Amino acid sequence: MSYTKKSEEKNRVALLVQYDGSHFNGWQIQNKGRTVQGEIEKALEVLLKEKIRTTAAGRTDSGVHALGQVIHFDFSKDISDISLQKLCISLNGILEKDVAIKNAYIVPQSFHARFSAVQREYLYIVYNHPQRNPFIIKRAMWVSYDLDMNFLHNISQYFIGEKDFASFCKKESTEENTKNTVRRIDEFEVTKNKEFIFFRIRGTAFLHNMVRIIIGTILDIYNKNKFPGYVLEILEQKDRNASGKTAPAYGLYLNQIIYDPPLSAMKSAYLS
Amino acid sequence: MSYTKKSEEKNRVALLVQYDGSHFNGWQIQNKGRTVQGEIEKALEVLLKEKIRTTAAGRTDSGVHALGQVIHFDFSKDISDISLQKLCISLNGILEKDVAIKNAYIVPQSFHARFSAVQREYLYIVYNHPQRNPFIIKRAMWVSYDLDMNFLHNISQYFIGEKDFASFCKKESTEENTKNTVRRIDEFEVTKNKEFIFFRIRGTAFLHNMVRIIIGTILDIYNKNKFPGYVLEILEQKDRNASGKTAPAYGLYLNQIIYDPPLSAMKSAYLS
Repeated sequence: MSYTKKSEEKNRVALLVQYDGSHFNGWQIQNKGRTVQGEIEKALEVLLKEKIRTTAAGRTDSGVHALGQVIHFDFSKDISDISLQKLCISLNGILEKDVAIKNAYIVPQSFHARFSAVQREYLYIVYNHPQRNPFIIKRAMWVSYDLDMNFLHNISQYFIGEKDFASFCKKESTEENTKNTVRRIDEFEVTKNKEFIFFRIRGTAFLHNMVRIIIGTILDIYNKNKFPGYVLEILEQKDRNASGKTAPAYGLYLNQIIYDPPLSAMKSAYLS
Repeated sequence: MSYTKKSEEKNRVALLVQYDGSHFNGWQIQNKGRTVQGEIEKALEVLLKEKIRTTAAGRTDSGVHALGQVIHFDFSKDISDISLQKLCISLNGILEKDVAIKNAYIVPQSFHARFSAVQREYLYIVYNHPQRNPFIIKRAMWVSYDLDMNFLHNISQYFIGEKDFASFCKKESTEENTKNTVRRIDEFEVTKNKEFIFFRIRGTAFLHNMVRIIIGTILDIYNKNKFPGYVLEILEQKDRNASGKTAPAYGLYLNQIIYDPPLSAMKSAYLS
């Protein structure tokens, strides 16, 4: 098969990418508007002088941020002609300041940013203070009433494990695989640092809007004075109408993608 | 004297204010451009239905941020007619999202935001990483080379005490009192949290651009491989040409103003 052969001739590189999602229409290239994928592919084409197609570990929606997005792409040039450090520096030179390439790795053809990922980790940030904070505009969700850390810790535990998260999936989701709505959450930690509350949630994969609906539902249950265990009733119903509001996109950060073997085991531009 | 009498009839309120300085031409009202003072006085007039003039503890330059600016103003209305909480909420409702009133205090006529301040504290934030960070645009200074925390700690100690900071004052400063360039720095602490370095500097008062020139000079001495003690030679010269570059405004935050008795001892909208 010529396709396979051609593919074998190519070299694959993975990039660790950060972006402030505020001024993007999400990751994925669309007909209209600025997208992270669009900007990065344009920059790669300028540098490598060939058409480049990238694949991301997680396609973030409009307004969602990334602290540790991972993408991969193939190119024809001889890998030894390319310095990974120069690649990072040059890409950052071309890209606007709200995207940054933090590292680059030489990966085998069998590596796939999305399908090789064994875990994904998201962070949701809430600013909990009676007055708003001028520094969190489009960066965190403002909650003016006092949240109870014990409640948040208790309720988070009800989401851990392999469960059918149909109640926590966007209706009419356009994503594939949403017929099977079973997902596994491995870790869900809630911590506080001054007025900021960090919801760190790690799992194998997530449904469309799943983290944002989980956060919105937690706040909803808190406001309605229900017990944390009410989460089980919502899961049971397997119906989006049973859960709460979708928390705003701007509080959500794609924090980390975990691979096995880890990216840190690959040849990279910078030690990580 | 009618002026004194009129003044005694008035009531004085202090406000704790935060702002992201990115889209402001500094604190002080000018002929052109958006200023924090201008926005707050406009909002106060709308609310109190009289011309209000505010005084700030520290007049921040264009691009400089505030986490704990304190201002005061007088008004004629009966103080008992005004709920401090409502005042905060209403002001925040009128003001744009990059300014926030965090608290309000009823203070005696003898209180003056600027002259009653016994100490001022600034924070300078450096992002120390080979690649830039999309989330710190206009919020921190990016330093790509590796900074040594021991060096930073050692050099910071040379600034502590009462000294003539003429070498660390903007040339042709328009501020009053710059004939006397003796100031006292009481605390200078350098801490690191992940890739962020925080320079926290507290003193009685500061000359124009003093903190920014101190930071720029520290980086300069580090880059030129000079000893931390070189600070003493620069101080000795009492000449702006002896010190280093002025670090960018966007890394600087007016962190805290200290009064004696403290604002927390006054009747306030919110407990602090």
